[in-house]
Amino acid sequence: MAEYHGLSQIFTTTEASLYNNLFKSQNPPFHSPTALILEISPNPFPHTTTTTTNFVPIIKNNYNFNTLETLDHELESYRSKIIGHDDVYVAGHVLVYPSYNGFFEKPGLFLDQMFVRKCYRGMKFGKLLFSTVAMQAEKMGMGMVDWLVADWNEETINFYEKMGAHYIPDYRLCKLYGDQLQAFGKKSDYEPRIYRE
Amino acid sequence: MAEYHGLSQIFTTTEASLYNNLFKSQNPPFHSPTALILEISPNPFPHTTTTTTNFVPIIKNNYNFNTLETLDHELESYRSKIIGHDDVYVAGHVLVYPSYNGFFEKPGLFLDQMFVRKCYRGMKFGKLLFSTVAMQAEKMGMGMVDWLVADWNEETINFYEKMGAHYIPDYRLCKLYGDQLQAFGKKSDYEPRIYRE
Repeated sequence: MAEYHGLSQIFTTTEASLYNNLFKSQNPPFHSPTALILEISPNPFPHTTTTTTNFVPIIKNNYNFNTLETLDHELESYRSKIIGHDDVYVAGHVLVYPSYNGFFEKPGLFLDQMFVRKCYRGMKFGKLLFSTVAMQAEKMGMGMVDWLVADWNEETINFYEKMGAHYIPDYRLCKLYGDQLQAFGKKSDYEPRIYRE
Repeated sequence: MAEYHGLSQIFTTTEASLYNNLFKSQNPPFHSPTALILEISPNPFPHTTTTTTNFVPIIKNNYNFNTLETLDHELESYRSKIIGHDDVYVAGHVLVYPSYNGFFEKPGLFLDQMFVRKCYRGMKFGKLLFSTVAMQAEKMGMGMVDWLVADWNEETINFYEKMGAHYIPDYRLCKLYGDQLQAFGKKSDYEPRIYRE
C-alpha cells in the first residue's frame, strides 16, 4: 500500500511495531488500532471459536467470484500466514482506530488504511471491507467514520461518494514528525514550571 | 470554535457527550480523547496535588503579558467553572486523541482542536498549547502529531510551518455520518454469515 501511494520512503513499520501497536493493547478491538484481514480460499474455512466482545469473524461461503481462476494466478507471497492453512490468501485489509471530533456528540472510527491487492480488484472486496467498518461503527453506537483520500484518486473518491460519504475539500493534513517533533523534547522554552508546595 | 469555522450547523456536542467522551474513559490521559485547558489568572494558582501518570499541570507564573488589562475587558462567560475560582479565565484549549498510521513505526496524537479565544490572541498562547502537545507526544515516545487545517487559513498554516510541521496538500477528508452511516446498520447486503459448528 505504501508503494501504491509512493510513500515507501517514509515507511518505517516493522513486524515488531505492528505487534506492539495492534496486539499489545489492553483494549478490545476497535477501542485501539485494529486491523481486519480479508482472507479468501477455494475451500471452506476451518471452524473457529475466536470471537471477541466487539467482533465476530464474518464468513461468506459461495461468495460470487471465480475463486479458482483468481487463486491459480496468485503470488506465493499472498499466502496467508495468519490462519496457517495452505489454501488461504490475504486479499486485502482495513486498519482503523477510534477517533473523536469535538464538534460531534458521538465518537467514531478513523479509517487509516483500506487496501485490496491488485489481482483482487473489481470483485467488490473494497465495498465489503468498507461496509464492514461502517456497520461496525453503527453497531458500536458511533457517529462517524472519517478517512483521508488522495485528491488525484478520482476512482476512489467516486467509490466513497457512492457509499454515502461526504467529500470535504476544505482541509489539508499537517504532520509533525521526525527531527521536527524530536526538537520539542529538547526545548527548554516551554518546560513546565510546576507549582508545588 | 465551531462558529469560527462556520460549522455551527453540524455541532451536536452536549455537556453529557463531553462528559462521556472525555471523562468516562478508563485510560489515563492521552490514551483516549483528552482536553488540555489553558487557564489564566492575575493571581497565583492554588496549590494542586492533581497529577496523573502521564501529565502534570503546567503552571507558569509571571507570564509575560499584560494580565490585568486583558482580564479587565474579559467577558463573564469566559470565567472558568472548572477550577472554581473567581479570578480564573479560560483562554483556550486543545483536544487530542491517540492516532495511528500503518506506514509509521510509532503511534501518535491527533490534534482535533486547538483554539485560543479572540481576545487572547497574539500572546503566543497558540505556541504554548501546540508545544505542550508536541512535547507530550515526544515524552510518550510517539512518532507524530497529525491535524487538519482549513486551506483558506494562511496565517494558521504559516504558524504550523514555523513550528516545524509538514503541510501535505494531497489528501482530502471524507466523512460518513448521519443518515448515510445509519443506513449501514439496516443493510442486509453485507450481514455477516457466521460460521458455526
